[in-house]
Amino acid sequence: MSNLLQKERQQQTLDTDKLNKFLDPDTENTQAIFKQLISDPILVSKRNYYDLTKPQLRELSAQKIQRLSSYIDNESDEAFENRLSLLAISDPALGTRIGINLALFCNAVRGNGSDEQVNYWLRERGTSKLRDIYGCFAMTELGHGSNVAGLQTTATYNPEKQSFVLNTPELAATKWWIGGAAHSANHAAVYARLISKGKDYGVKVFVVQLRDSNFNLLPGVSIGDIGTKMGRDAIDNGWIQFNNVEIPREYMLQKFTTIDPDGTVHLTPLEQISYSALIQGRVSMVMDSYRHGARYITIALRYAIGRQQFGKPGEENQIINYTLHQYRLVPYLALVYLLGPAAQKLMNDYRVILNDLYAAKNIKKSIFDLKNLFVSSASLKATNTWLISQLIDEARQACGGHGYHAYSGLGRAFQDWSVQQTWEGDNNVLSINAGRSIIKYYEGAKKGKKLGEDFAYLAKTYEKGLDLNDLETYITIWAATIQKVAQHALKIANGNWELVSQERLLLSKFHSSHYLLSEFAKRAESLTGQEKEITIALFKLYSLFFVEKFSGTFLQFKVIDAEKLAEIQSEIKKLFTQLRPHLVALTDSFKYPDEIINSSLGNFNGDFYNNYFGDVVANYGKGDKPPYLEVFSDMLGRKDVDERLSNSRSKAVLTKLGN
Amino acid sequence: MSNLLQKERQQQTLDTDKLNKFLDPDTENTQAIFKQLISDPILVSKRNYYDLTKPQLRELSAQKIQRLSSYIDNESDEAFENRLSLLAISDPALGTRIGINLALFCNAVRGNGSDEQVNYWLRERGTSKLRDIYGCFAMTELGHGSNVAGLQTTATYNPEKQSFVLNTPELAATKWWIGGAAHSANHAAVYARLISKGKDYGVKVFVVQLRDSNFNLLPGVSIGDIGTKMGRDAIDNGWIQFNNVEIPREYMLQKFTTIDPDGTVHLTPLEQISYSALIQGRVSMVMDSYRHGARYITIALRYAIGRQQFGKPGEENQIINYTLHQYRLVPYLALVYLLGPAAQKLMNDYRVILNDLYAAKNIKKSIFDLKNLFVSSASLKATNTWLISQLIDEARQACGGHGYHAYSGLGRAFQDWSVQQTWEGDNNVLSINAGRSIIKYYEGAKKGKKLGEDFAYLAKTYEKGLDLNDLETYITIWAATIQKVAQHALKIANGNWELVSQERLLLSKFHSSHYLLSEFAKRAESLTGQEKEITIALFKLYSLFFVEKFSGTFLQFKVIDAEKLAEIQSEIKKLFTQLRPHLVALTDSFKYPDEIINSSLGNFNGDFYNNYFGDVVANYGKGDKPPYLEVFSDMLGRKDVDERLSNSRSKAVLTKLGN
Repeated sequence: MSNLLQKERQQQTLDTDKLNKFLDPDTENTQAIFKQLISDPILVSKRNYYDLTKPQLRELSAQKIQRLSSYIDNESDEAFENRLSLLAISDPALGTRIGINLALFCNAVRGNGSDEQVNYWLRERGTSKLRDIYGCFAMTELGHGSNVAGLQTTATYNPEKQSFVLNTPELAATKWWIGGAAHSANHAAVYARLISKGKDYGVKVFVVQLRDSNFNLLPGVSIGDIGTKMGRDAIDNGWIQFNNVEIPREYMLQKFTTIDPDGTVHLTPLEQISYSALIQGRVSMVMDSYRHGARYITIALRYAIGRQQFGKPGEENQIINYTLHQYRLVPYLALVYLLGPAAQKLMNDYRVILNDLYAAKNIKKSIFDLKNLFVSSASLKATNTWLISQLIDEARQACGGHGYHAYSGLGRAFQDWSVQQTWEGDNNVLSINAGRSIIKYYEGAKKGKKLGEDFAYLAKTYEKGLDLNDLETYITIWAATIQKVAQHALKIANGNWELVSQERLLLSKFHSSHYLLSEFAKRAESLTGQEKEITIALFKLYSLFFVEKFSGTFLQFKVIDAEKLAEIQSEIKKLFTQLRPHLVALTDSFKYPDEIINSSLGNFNGDFYNNYFGDVVANYGKGDKPPYLEVFSDMLGRKDVDERLSNSRSKAVLTKLGN
Repeated sequence: MSNLLQKERQQQTLDTDKLNKFLDPDTENTQAIFKQLISDPILVSKRNYYDLTKPQLRELSAQKIQRLSSYIDNESDEAFENRLSLLAISDPALGTRIGINLALFCNAVRGNGSDEQVNYWLRERGTSKLRDIYGCFAMTELGHGSNVAGLQTTATYNPEKQSFVLNTPELAATKWWIGGAAHSANHAAVYARLISKGKDYGVKVFVVQLRDSNFNLLPGVSIGDIGTKMGRDAIDNGWIQFNNVEIPREYMLQKFTTIDPDGTVHLTPLEQISYSALIQGRVSMVMDSYRHGARYITIALRYAIGRQQFGKPGEENQIINYTLHQYRLVPYLALVYLLGPAAQKLMNDYRVILNDLYAAKNIKKSIFDLKNLFVSSASLKATNTWLISQLIDEARQACGGHGYHAYSGLGRAFQDWSVQQTWEGDNNVLSINAGRSIIKYYEGAKKGKKLGEDFAYLAKTYEKGLDLNDLETYITIWAATIQKVAQHALKIANGNWELVSQERLLLSKFHSSHYLLSEFAKRAESLTGQEKEITIALFKLYSLFFVEKFSGTFLQFKVIDAEKLAEIQSEIKKLFTQLRPHLVALTDSFKYPDEIINSSLGNFNGDFYNNYFGDVVANYGKGDKPPYLEVFSDMLGRKDVDERLSNSRSKAVLTKLGN
């Protein structure tokens, strides 16, 4: 059997360096980090990563964190953050387990602490360099996930002792899901209700030490392991209960809220921006969507190109040549391509806006920008973490039975990825919130209110017809539809947002499409030649594929009619034909080393059967007897039931018993 | 916090016994089996089932199989099959691990063996009673999954020794995924190419002993463990290679193909029905879709009714009251209700048709029926295993963060379920095959060809308008659309089926909807009163929800227009309102004991937080230090980098080195 992937690679004509640079302007740095990572014997993920038990995963991830601490000593926060994001492609749980400390805990301090507090907790104590303190982020409770305002843990101020006393008033107030709490963290950023002089001031943030230097729990602190999860078992999520745990007054983070020694509380109107630190997670998840999506679509496409099925012997009937298979995978490749530029723009916006905000240059503008960022990041996080979950599931199915093997990497991928849809803002909640904002922006725009850059399209008019030869069409078809849906939703909601939750959900998804398409179109300007042609084909495919997917809405709102839909369907097929010869190059352009892809089905060399069989035999051996052999031999060797029960149920016995 | 589930249950007005009997006419038997199961200390699934490692799962499942062998001694094959199907609701891998022997191996013998062979292998040897022989089903190869005709393993006849010699000619021909091969089976039904006198007669079935009574591999047989999978790790899938393995001539199964001692092969034209035995898996998976779906939707709905979020203290703001949440879950409840009668009809048809076929009463009619059964079962298997996968994913997400905990049961559910989409006919392959048959049936009907009962609707004409007050409409809207899509596909395919794979996929899905709706409508006739009213609401919701989901197609083919779609959308909302008060009763009506549901979030008592916290503490303890504590303390306690490297990088040293 010839190596179809290699053969196809030899024949392809795209410049993968050029495409790689297009996808990742920072590629030299990325490749340097990949090289360090895969040559590091502790950090590199091996195939048996998929066989490790929960205790093994947790210990290995602790060793990886220790190993990373020697990297962090020599680089900036931002550089290390990027290293971690790249490392998380092949070990998502590791990224999270460190991110709990470096992103969540540290950002809670940065976002809520005074300059002195930030300096003390993060720099003087060394937390941001993985020294002395390992922090966790104690926000969610057993009874309260998305609803932060409803948290029940209390921090009651005692002016005599100038200290707070933390308590968990009931079971549902138990801090729950707290990553790192079970086995890693010695401190926590605790979200609790500030009570002073009998008054409840709402939820504020407190630094609470959980364990001493011998890792013994401090008095009043109860902690346990949450246990096994759907995925990411390397993270030691825990639960925490507080019983009269005392902390000094100074341990409340006091950027926005301050408390005098006598218990007088001062609030500032800027408090709403205290949650700005949480936005990093959402922004990162859009970047994850791009980076992890690239990994999984590469596996499925390489396999689809290299695997033969139903062909006569000698004929190379690759499964990727089936129209349906292209339909299943190629649109997701387009999605990943479009996600690259969008994720980079979002990350860049985030950094600029947060810097401006912390620098307090123009607080009004910063808050305006921040609100827009909240909406776009919510829409992009929700929509794309959903899509990547679908991508992984489709990729798994597209690899057939072998996709179900742990060494495809796709089963674990799904398990690890799934939580991205839920944490740091449940996707449905984020979407309907973003959708409501979009409707309000649209309404505001009609009254002449200023719109943020991402939403400027809501104020434009789209009169031109839909010409598939005009690239603008692929963007404006979304803008026009968003306006119509928003208009419709405004009319029927009439102030009751609950009536239009479906429409809000749609608007959030459509805004993400518009964002991706707009950003990609800008970036594609920089390309030339065949690479430009092919990326434009991906751009078109993304737009049309999703228009067809949501064609019910496009038809209902009369943006297109049945004939235009037929034209779109036929155009999609043409795009598949155009893209087909370039699929190897388009996946190679991600430049992910085999160790990052970590799949028996996704190696660059395309020698699937040898790779896969070799991995299986190396890790699971040959011809072993099961340790519980006697269970089977006892069963198979047992006597016939009549024989076994004959003594006690024979006719003679029954006669004796009855007469 | 009050118990909202209990409160709502007290207020509900449906007769759950009546609904339960409607869903499961055999309910007395079902409940009796459930009772035995949950009172059996080995068979009952406990919460820590979700924590077991692969070796632990495999050993436990072997113990369960041994335990079941004392049940099988006293009941019919059909009764035991039903017991197993019910048991698989809470332990899907166990169902499969036994099914490999009792369904796959035994059916391969039944479907391909002569009467004498069937009698010897299954009864005389005791295989069908889990005695003496544990068989596996060695069909798929590393390089050949769905394409059975392309299998490469050879069985070459040697007339001198009157025996076959089995060989694995290349790596890709390694038997792969063979459930039970790694650690359980001592025999296999091997699918291999029959070669006699230098001629290849295609794939036939051979019984091959793999291991002796001490579980040592026979000469020439190589076997290994496939290893870890996405789910169902209790099954010991293995790979097998044959190197000149000799078996007697009589070990070829000879119902359809016989071989004389001199090597002359006799084929019968009926051979195509040799695969009829494989259909049981597909039919069972439709039943699984109903039975497992009921388990998972119960968890999500109970949680949605009992969980409060975003409510002011004291106000009972249940998450199920959000429109979007109803949109996410209630249509799946409708799906499960509709699946019950459909799965039962399909199972019944299967049993009647296969009995007739084996009895050879009217072989022509049997083959006609069998072909229809192939198409309907393919469409129903593919469509509904996909939908249940979506149901589980949505249920997981609908339980928010807690859904991601292993003890929700939903993560494992997804992992275990996912393979149903792939095995025993990949869903995409089955769908496009079913779709092609539907187009051909439609074409045939126009020429006056006779249609099977399931497809009679293809020959009718649907002229009436769509009146949502007329129950027929909810079925005929599908029939009419199927005809239009089939007509369209015929026109554009013009013999090239590849051009219409999308349409074929749609037709398969739509046929499933038509089948479910038709069967449910018949069954609902038997109900009266409020129970009838509410099941009819579920029937309507199922139809309209999926019409809306595929509204692009319905609009494109002008079965509905934008105004009708708006009417449908508004009707869906009314149905949610109508169904809302009955959701507790509708899930209670499945009558699944807590042990079958096996979820910390799905207990009947609705006391979620106590159940969940109790389960977590019971299984994971409190306040443990990690065994790898020193890894963290070394890292957190390390000295500053300047200090650590100062000896070798200080200015003094560098000056010394440079000058």
